[in-house]
Amino acid sequence: MGADFKPTVKTRVKRLNKRAHYDRDTLNAIIDAALVGHVGYVIDGQPYVTATNIWREGDHLLWHGSSASRMLKTVREAIPVCVTVTHIDGLVMARSAFHHSVNYRSAMIFGKAAMVEDKDEKMKALEAFTERVAPGRWATLRPVTPQELKATMVVGMPISEAVAKVRTGPPIDDEPDYAMDIWAGVIPLKLTAGTPIPDPRLKPRTRLPKGFRDYDTEAYARR
Amino acid sequence: MGADFKPTVKTRVKRLNKRAHYDRDTLNAIIDAALVGHVGYVIDGQPYVTATNIWREGDHLLWHGSSASRMLKTVREAIPVCVTVTHIDGLVMARSAFHHSVNYRSAMIFGKAAMVEDKDEKMKALEAFTERVAPGRWATLRPVTPQELKATMVVGMPISEAVAKVRTGPPIDDEPDYAMDIWAGVIPLKLTAGTPIPDPRLKPRTRLPKGFRDYDTEAYARR
Repeated sequence: MGADFKPTVKTRVKRLNKRAHYDRDTLNAIIDAALVGHVGYVIDGQPYVTATNIWREGDHLLWHGSSASRMLKTVREAIPVCVTVTHIDGLVMARSAFHHSVNYRSAMIFGKAAMVEDKDEKMKALEAFTERVAPGRWATLRPVTPQELKATMVVGMPISEAVAKVRTGPPIDDEPDYAMDIWAGVIPLKLTAGTPIPDPRLKPRTRLPKGFRDYDTEAYARR
Repeated sequence: MGADFKPTVKTRVKRLNKRAHYDRDTLNAIIDAALVGHVGYVIDGQPYVTATNIWREGDHLLWHGSSASRMLKTVREAIPVCVTVTHIDGLVMARSAFHHSVNYRSAMIFGKAAMVEDKDEKMKALEAFTERVAPGRWATLRPVTPQELKATMVVGMPISEAVAKVRTGPPIDDEPDYAMDIWAGVIPLKLTAGTPIPDPRLKPRTRLPKGFRDYDTEAYARR
């Protein structure tokens, strides 16, 4: 695994800098717990932000989609990209409006994306992504056809310029405000899975795969 | 409330265009159910994506933060901005890797932000935001000081160029694949609130406000 990150003009956090983390373990953990990232890119001076599934392979961030996607056709041209991954962990209720906050973990990754051109490498990336979301599933699926592989684009970006930001814990109020009779604390939030809904066309007696009930939305890296 | 949206070169969805919605009700509902949006902006050709609390007042999207925030100092200069709001509603498990998908609701809003300069208007916006997250709370808090108001920036952007994208329902598999003995369906996902965690410095016998237990993370507009 690569070294930690050197803060740059893009990634140095100036305000509330105790929330900033430049170590790779913190950053990787935020990416590995995420299903989706928001990819920022520029066309003719106009920013676009597209939500998409992301995943990590070593020191690279990957994402994929239709070969016809505007986002993918744009970012594969090695233009500057910013991918932000955000987990909302709680509403922080303070005794003044000013000190209300949100507990969160976020990662901002800057770089340039490149297309995964090699067919075998692309297939392996899609397998890794599928297995990340549902371990053991790839081998059970109808195999990917050459046409499907062609219709799918995978891009990767080195994780080399990045910053994580994390806020945890209770509100930090002004000292005199602690005497107030107002409830303060945190309402924890988590992306949570419900009971799986079978496809109406599911064949009778098809078994629900292990791990689909009580699906852990942050355990991708640990599956 | 304003008219629906005319698709533009930025907002016209070309691929899977049955997922696109250009009516204001669909767009507003996605914004109103959200706690956070991802703001995309450009500095010297480099895109940045910052997650931040967003809310809606009529035909305007608002967000706020520290007056020292790079994001806010940049976007208040009326540069092009893209704000994307995303709800992840489910993992769609199909019988082929290719047809796996995600159920989601997303909104992309393009425009230029302007600072809310007027002090009363700014205070009203902060009150509206606080009440959206926790109705009735504003009146119970230690009042905002002039210094705090100065240290807080609020920006607003007209919601005039926008598109919503929504995917719902089961996987759509290739017809022959429905014969396969593999579980297919949807694992529903939702941002869910847990049991409130009182501040360790909470005064004894302080009552938990109504609505903080079983907090509904999507009911902001209905509170």
